[in-house]
Amino acid sequence: MVNLKEDERLDYLLAEDLRIIQSPSVFAFSLDAVLLSKFVYVPIQKGNLIDLCSGNGVIPLFLSKRTKGTITGVEIQERLYDMAVRSIEYNKLEHRIHMIHGDIKDMPKQLGYGKFDVVTCNPPYFPTPSNEEINLNEHLAIARHEILCTLEDAIRVSGQLVRQGGKVAFVHRPGRLLDIVTLMRSCQLEPKRIQFVYPKQGKEANTLLVEAIKQGNPDLKILPPLYVYNEYNEYTPEIREILYGKK
Amino acid sequence: MVNLKEDERLDYLLAEDLRIIQSPSVFAFSLDAVLLSKFVYVPIQKGNLIDLCSGNGVIPLFLSKRTKGTITGVEIQERLYDMAVRSIEYNKLEHRIHMIHGDIKDMPKQLGYGKFDVVTCNPPYFPTPSNEEINLNEHLAIARHEILCTLEDAIRVSGQLVRQGGKVAFVHRPGRLLDIVTLMRSCQLEPKRIQFVYPKQGKEANTLLVEAIKQGNPDLKILPPLYVYNEYNEYTPEIREILYGKK
Repeated sequence: MVNLKEDERLDYLLAEDLRIIQSPSVFAFSLDAVLLSKFVYVPIQKGNLIDLCSGNGVIPLFLSKRTKGTITGVEIQERLYDMAVRSIEYNKLEHRIHMIHGDIKDMPKQLGYGKFDVVTCNPPYFPTPSNEEINLNEHLAIARHEILCTLEDAIRVSGQLVRQGGKVAFVHRPGRLLDIVTLMRSCQLEPKRIQFVYPKQGKEANTLLVEAIKQGNPDLKILPPLYVYNEYNEYTPEIREILYGKK
Repeated sequence: MVNLKEDERLDYLLAEDLRIIQSPSVFAFSLDAVLLSKFVYVPIQKGNLIDLCSGNGVIPLFLSKRTKGTITGVEIQERLYDMAVRSIEYNKLEHRIHMIHGDIKDMPKQLGYGKFDVVTCNPPYFPTPSNEEINLNEHLAIARHEILCTLEDAIRVSGQLVRQGGKVAFVHRPGRLLDIVTLMRSCQLEPKRIQFVYPKQGKEANTLLVEAIKQGNPDLKILPPLYVYNEYNEYTPEIREILYGKK
């Protein structure tokens, strides 16, 4: 049983046999969040993971299928935090996923410095919009725009939370690549793996996945590209496998 | 007629109907130089272009087929400079390609600051080797290792030579991506286009092409990936076209 509010739906995360509460007017997870959940290296048997800007908890839910460690999710919007908590309960994962309703900028003081093996973050992508746009839909605006959390905040906090040798993984737009790698290096986070996601062959990349190691040695790898759609605008086999668990 | 020295060969640049003097023991151009010649944006009707670390002049020769502008090549090794001069004469391009035997670090003072529309550079890729390796083959060592020219030198000089709004294009290894973009930004060169070259599908990138604009606005594009070999270890159609001028 699950208590759904307003226009919420109980959607399937097919590949992982999980379900997740979403709402078109409040928050629905994107492919980017799923890609980040699959991209990041995670310790399998145990570990202390944290996801910043968690939204409805999609990344913690996906990560729970890749690791037996404990996962913390942080979300500043109470409405989204509440969706995440109910999804975690529905999937009976309360013992391994713990949601915090709060500001990521308070987390190092609240949770401790250097306590996490892995930090993931799918931050708001866009600069702060005009006031009219904010008023239109506050939930979506906060999730998508750098209103309460800038890229610099997210990277600085990640660097504070992760232990030496631990991993920090972000998903963002390729246009921010230079800002991301510059900010990461200024926080002693050395980018080690980058993967670009292309909507289809022949197009420019529209998504960037990057993983850094705290105080790692410089040695960057550019992974094989990932294509989302084939020439018929159908998901490619690799994306189908990520989303639905089969080729 | 051409005067060939020692083990030199007069190789074909098939796609461009050009010929170039090479020598396996002294210098032979790489695919990377060809890719850079095709990657960089060039003014078609006129313009002032310069290629740093020119080796046997392969990039100026290729560029001469894409622009009617004038092209300067700079090479510090007299033996390679001499090969370039003879190739340029053989192709009857002396009126448009001018080789300089000198150190790129002296060029801004010698040629002027901000005088070039386009700067290209395929610099030495590897850190300075041990002395034994240098002694083994001085020509190849200088061409491949940062003995007489570091990456920082090459980027700083490029930023000094290029005019505001002009373009600077480099080819290098992806492992140096972060150094390149950081150094470029410190020289007011804003990276605008990056393309990764993969040896084949499913492999990590092994070559990086990057083009920056002097005092450009931040707006980075990641171009579609380029694959060199297909699954049968044959050149892909796009590489065949670049090398041989046909698909």
